[in-house]
Amino acid sequence: MTPAEPESCPDNELHRVRNLMTELAAEEIDPNTRIAAAVRYHLSASGKQVRARLALSCAQALSIDPDDANALAACCEFLHNASLVHDDLQDRDPSRRGQPALWTRFDRDTALLVGDLFLSLSFRALAEVRIAAESRHLMRLLHQRTSQAIAGQSLDLGQEIHDLNCYEVMVGGKSGAFLSLPLEMPLILARRDQDLATARQGANAFAIGYQIADDLADLDDRTLRGSNLVAILEKHHGRDRAIALSKVRAELAFAEAIDLANLLPSGCAALLGDYAAMMLANLHCRRAA
Amino acid sequence: MTPAEPESCPDNELHRVRNLMTELAAEEIDPNTRIAAAVRYHLSASGKQVRARLALSCAQALSIDPDDANALAACCEFLHNASLVHDDLQDRDPSRRGQPALWTRFDRDTALLVGDLFLSLSFRALAEVRIAAESRHLMRLLHQRTSQAIAGQSLDLGQEIHDLNCYEVMVGGKSGAFLSLPLEMPLILARRDQDLATARQGANAFAIGYQIADDLADLDDRTLRGSNLVAILEKHHGRDRAIALSKVRAELAFAEAIDLANLLPSGCAALLGDYAAMMLANLHCRRAA
Repeated sequence: MTPAEPESCPDNELHRVRNLMTELAAEEIDPNTRIAAAVRYHLSASGKQVRARLALSCAQALSIDPDDANALAACCEFLHNASLVHDDLQDRDPSRRGQPALWTRFDRDTALLVGDLFLSLSFRALAEVRIAAESRHLMRLLHQRTSQAIAGQSLDLGQEIHDLNCYEVMVGGKSGAFLSLPLEMPLILARRDQDLATARQGANAFAIGYQIADDLADLDDRTLRGSNLVAILEKHHGRDRAIALSKVRAELAFAEAIDLANLLPSGCAALLGDYAAMMLANLHCRRAA
Repeated sequence: MTPAEPESCPDNELHRVRNLMTELAAEEIDPNTRIAAAVRYHLSASGKQVRARLALSCAQALSIDPDDANALAACCEFLHNASLVHDDLQDRDPSRRGQPALWTRFDRDTALLVGDLFLSLSFRALAEVRIAAESRHLMRLLHQRTSQAIAGQSLDLGQEIHDLNCYEVMVGGKSGAFLSLPLEMPLILARRDQDLATARQGANAFAIGYQIADDLADLDDRTLRGSNLVAILEKHHGRDRAIALSKVRAELAFAEAIDLANLLPSGCAALLGDYAAMMLANLHCRRAA
């Protein structure tokens, strides 16, 4: 039995985010060009929009203006999509969201440019937030998390991951950074700076658990990536013990994410906690199987 | 005789821009990593810093606070460097500023990430501007110009340039967009919105002249790039007439840039006018030779 997906925001709110993204992405680009076609192609498959869901539900709990919440959600989704397009290019992943990845459907040059455009659009979306007093804080944070993701991806590609500590730094950058933004940004608009560190840690813990679960699911693949936690740990502990240690670390990480999500005000990170609980239940199911 | 380079801001002001760039680029990145080494490597060769010079001299003429001017100059330089790193990667240019290009000295993955980082840093630098009321306007403009550059690069790479009009759209995007920013941003801080269109047109005219001059200088190369204006025009006019037409178009563009620069307030675009005058004199020298 697979645990159900947690309930989050209604479809029409996600629809508004998609509309804003489509509108902003079309602003400066001639619709008859190759780059415009590539942008439309990539955005036509939306994925689960986890970061938009997190941002919308967090913002709603903190009574942020819905238009500002929409802008934050679009910002987080654009950034995530920028990284997907560039990561697929670097990792030569041929598919994304059930269709050919952008770089295979178009070409490598176009994928590079679309990733650049999405990164720029992420900052552009912030300009839609109407609380000007916080815009410099939001920009600094957006850059900070972007840098951490870039540093994490560089560690991963450079195969510089040799122990659990370094693995967690890499994952915290590559995926934790983009999962904490949807919580941190609404907290900034709600002037809850004192909660930012907890949000970052909770998102980081969730990312670590999620990545380990992903690594465990990849065990059926013939060759593990060098940065797969099981591959890292099995050098010292052997395969079986490495798997057991990885599962325990993932369980701890999800439990930590749930605890930290509960510490945040007005239940604003309840959805992150729900996702963590679902992932934890999934891990247990797999262990029982 | 080659006309002298125009005088611009003193070295110590450019030094401050470099220092701010180095400081911001180091903020989030572990200095012992490959990505940090790549960033230091690229920034170690500064180039002519034309965009920083334009921003500083424009801001000074408009009595913008020097720290804000410094931030705008760093923003423009980061954006330009982002495009250089990604363009070199796409064009497989092996050298940049007299040293191996980043992608050859390091690797293609690292160059992609450093370009992403510089793009993000460009927005990060804007967060240093202390006039919060204008930060959304600056962000929108920075994204707008970035999109235009991306669209221009896409047209160029896709070899979609078949006439002078399309050529000018491409050049206006690829290089005009990043040359107008250093004028437009100080004008925004000085609340001279009524002058923005003139600044954009002047920078665009300069970029068109500059690119045509570059195309003419490339005529000695055995194979012209498809987007070389001479290659575009010679299909209909033959080589000699294509060269003559290109020269005339470049002269007109520089003359237009000089005229438009003169229209801007407080001589804030005098340096752009000086550069245009130098390029125009260079064209005449070449014609006389």
